[in-house]
Amino acid sequence: MSGPEQWGDTVDRREYLAWGYLRRVIEASRGDLLELLWPGGETSQPADVVDVAERIATRDTGLPDGLLQATANRYCADPRQDAEIARRRGMRLIFPGCPEWPRRLDDSFFSLHGAGVGSDSTVRGLSTAPFSLWVEGEGRLDRLVQLSVAMVGTRAPSRYGREVAQQFATELGLAGYSVVSGGALGIDRVCHEAALDCGASSIAVLASGPDVDYPSAHGPLFRRIRQHGCTVSEYPPGVPPARHRFLTRNRLVAGLALGTVVLQAPLRSGALNTANWSEAMVKPTLAVPGPVTSAGFQGCLKYIRDNRAAMAICAGDIREQLEPLGRGAAPGEPELPFGKTALTLSETMVFDACAIGSEAHAGSVSDVQAATGLSGNLVMRTLRDLEKRGYVRREGSRWIKAPGTR
Amino acid sequence: MSGPEQWGDTVDRREYLAWGYLRRVIEASRGDLLELLWPGGETSQPADVVDVAERIATRDTGLPDGLLQATANRYCADPRQDAEIARRRGMRLIFPGCPEWPRRLDDSFFSLHGAGVGSDSTVRGLSTAPFSLWVEGEGRLDRLVQLSVAMVGTRAPSRYGREVAQQFATELGLAGYSVVSGGALGIDRVCHEAALDCGASSIAVLASGPDVDYPSAHGPLFRRIRQHGCTVSEYPPGVPPARHRFLTRNRLVAGLALGTVVLQAPLRSGALNTANWSEAMVKPTLAVPGPVTSAGFQGCLKYIRDNRAAMAICAGDIREQLEPLGRGAAPGEPELPFGKTALTLSETMVFDACAIGSEAHAGSVSDVQAATGLSGNLVMRTLRDLEKRGYVRREGSRWIKAPGTR
Repeated sequence: MSGPEQWGDTVDRREYLAWGYLRRVIEASRGDLLELLWPGGETSQPADVVDVAERIATRDTGLPDGLLQATANRYCADPRQDAEIARRRGMRLIFPGCPEWPRRLDDSFFSLHGAGVGSDSTVRGLSTAPFSLWVEGEGRLDRLVQLSVAMVGTRAPSRYGREVAQQFATELGLAGYSVVSGGALGIDRVCHEAALDCGASSIAVLASGPDVDYPSAHGPLFRRIRQHGCTVSEYPPGVPPARHRFLTRNRLVAGLALGTVVLQAPLRSGALNTANWSEAMVKPTLAVPGPVTSAGFQGCLKYIRDNRAAMAICAGDIREQLEPLGRGAAPGEPELPFGKTALTLSETMVFDACAIGSEAHAGSVSDVQAATGLSGNLVMRTLRDLEKRGYVRREGSRWIKAPGTR
Repeated sequence: MSGPEQWGDTVDRREYLAWGYLRRVIEASRGDLLELLWPGGETSQPADVVDVAERIATRDTGLPDGLLQATANRYCADPRQDAEIARRRGMRLIFPGCPEWPRRLDDSFFSLHGAGVGSDSTVRGLSTAPFSLWVEGEGRLDRLVQLSVAMVGTRAPSRYGREVAQQFATELGLAGYSVVSGGALGIDRVCHEAALDCGASSIAVLASGPDVDYPSAHGPLFRRIRQHGCTVSEYPPGVPPARHRFLTRNRLVAGLALGTVVLQAPLRSGALNTANWSEAMVKPTLAVPGPVTSAGFQGCLKYIRDNRAAMAICAGDIREQLEPLGRGAAPGEPELPFGKTALTLSETMVFDACAIGSEAHAGSVSDVQAATGLSGNLVMRTLRDLEKRGYVRREGSRWIKAPGTR
C-alpha cells in the first residue's frame, strides 16, 4: 500500500494520485502541509507532491508531529479508488497550477493572511488556503468564477426573503454572473434555481464530497447545477457532510466569488459566517435589509447598521460594488507620468500608500486600503501587479516600496 | 397705525409687540432682518427691536430694499391684534433671550452656517434662523427639547411602518424623550400619539399658526399635544398652512431635536427634507429600514445605503446616537494634561483638529468632525466651550487654534 508504486506509472498520473491521496488523508487543509507543499510561500511553485505524499504514507518521522497525528487514521488510503470513482462519474481534482484552478482563490487567501487572519483568527472555521479541490460538473470552475457573486442566507426564509433572493439572483444571472452558494434549503436553493432558470451558471460549494447530494431532496437541483456549472468541495468523493465542514466550506464560498451578498439572515446564521470570511478577505460584502420586526433579518440589519455590510437595495447595488474589481483602472483614467514608465491614478495611490523601508508599522493591506479608499480586491490586484513590475515588494504582511522607485 | 404709540406702554410690552409685529410682517425669516436685529452676529445681544420694527412700519428708505419689498403688503399690521388673540387663547411669542427660548435652536443654525449651508444651499427651504416663535401649550419649549427626538415619515405608512413608529416612539417616550414632529397624518400622528399614550410629551411644529388645526381632523390630537407639550410655529395666530411653509418648517423640526429619525419614507418625502436639515446641522440622522420591495421605504433605504442616515433597528440605536450628546466627556474619561489646565480626550481631539493660523483651507466643522470621528453636536459643543476658554476662535466658518495654545 505504501511506496511509490501506488502512485501509478506516468509522472502526471503519479502527481494526480499524490494530490488525491493528500485530499483523502487531510481534513480540508493544514498550515503545516501547505508549508511542505509550498516551502517558498503560497505563490511559489510547489515542492514534489509525490514526495510529500510518500512521506505521509510511510510515516516519515521528519514530518511535523501534528501532520503525522492528523493522518494517523487515514494514511493507508489508496488514491486509486478515488481516481477510479472520479473517472467513472466524471469528477476531477484540481490544484494550483491546473488550468481550471481559480486564481481568485489564491488572491482571497493572500488577502486573508495579509489582513492578519491566521490560525488564531476570530473568524470561526479553518482559515488555511485549500490545496486542491474536487469538482464535478460541465462548467469550468476558473471560468465560472470570473464574474461570480456569493449569495447566501437562511435555510428558512420568509416569503419576502425568497422573493428578493429570486429577483436579485435573476438580475445578476441575466447580467452574466455565476451564483456561488452552498447547497442548503432556503436561500441557497432559491438563488441557484433563479440563476439556472435564466440560463446562468451556478456553483454549489459542498461540505461533503462533490458527488454527495445533501440534503437528498436537492439531488435534482445538484444535477442541474452540474449541467450548467459545478459542485465543488475540499472533500473527496463520498465523504458525508459534517458540522465543522460547513463552517470550513464557507470560506470557499466567499473565496471563490468577487463578493458576498447576504439575502436574509437571523442573528445566528452560517450566512453571516460567510460574510465574515468575505470581510476578512477584504471583498465587497453586502446584505439585504428587511423588516426590523422580523427575527429572520436581524443578522442582515446588524451587519448593515454596524457597517460590516453595505446595503443592497437592488441588484444594481451589488453590481456597483463588484464590477469595478478586475477592471483595474476605470476607462479613461489618466496615466500619470512616473519614472520611466507610467502608473494609473489608482496604481499611484496604492504605490504611495506602501511603506518605505524604515516604517516598521505601515504598509499592511488594510493600511493601503484605508489610505486609498479603494476596494480590497483592487488593492490586492494592484499590489501584485506593482510587485511584478518591480515597484513594490512584500515583506511578511507589509508592502514596501522598492528602492529607487520613489 | 404706524409710529411708536402702537407698541404699547411699558418697555416690555413695547418689545413684545415689536417682535410680534416682525413675526406678522415677515414670512418665516430673512437674513437681512437678522443682520439688523443682531448686527454683532447671531450670538450677540439684539439691537433695539422696537427701532427695527418702527423703521419697517414707517418704510425707512435706509432699510435693505429686499426687506422693504418683502414687507410692502403687510407693514400696516397691528401687533396688538395678535397679542390680544394670544392672550385670550393662552399663546405666547418667544424670542432669543426669553427663558423659554430653546438654546439648541441657536446651536443648530450655528452648525448649519458653520457647515457652509447658506442662502444658496442645496437643502430645499429657508436656511435662515428663526428670530422668534409662537408657542401654544402647557409644556415649556426649552425644557421639552432637552431630551427630544424628531420622528418623521410618510403620511401614508404601511402597517409595518405604523407598528415600528409606534413601538419606537413608545420606547423613547418611556425613556423620557419628547417627540418632535409635524402635525400630518400617518407617521407624525402615530409618533405623537404613542408618546402621549405613554405619558411623554410631544411638540408639533406647524406650517401654520400654532393655533391652526391642520388637518382639521387632528384638532383633538393637537389639543392633547398642547396639554402635555406644545404646538410651535414661525407663523402668527390664524395663518393658514402653505406648501412652502412645510419645507421651511422642516428645518425647525430638525433644529429643535437632538437628532432625527425617519420612520418610513418613499423617495419623495418631506421626511427626507427634514433628514437633510438634520444632516446639514451635523446632528445624528437615522432611518428605519423596511422591505426593499416596498416603495414606501425607498427613501429610508437609500439614505442608509448612501451613509446619509444611520440604521435604526431598535429604539436603542436611536438612544445610542442621541444620548452621548450634551454629556460631554464620557464618565471616567481621563483628562489629559494640557498647558496650565486640562482638556478631556475629546476636547484634545477637537482642539488638535482645528486649524493653525496659516492653514487657509482647514478647520471647518466638517474637517473637525472628519478628523475626530465625534458626532456633529459634540464637536460644536466642544468648539464653543473651547472658544469660551480661550483655546480656539472662530474665523468665518473656520476654527483656529488661539495663539500660544499649541
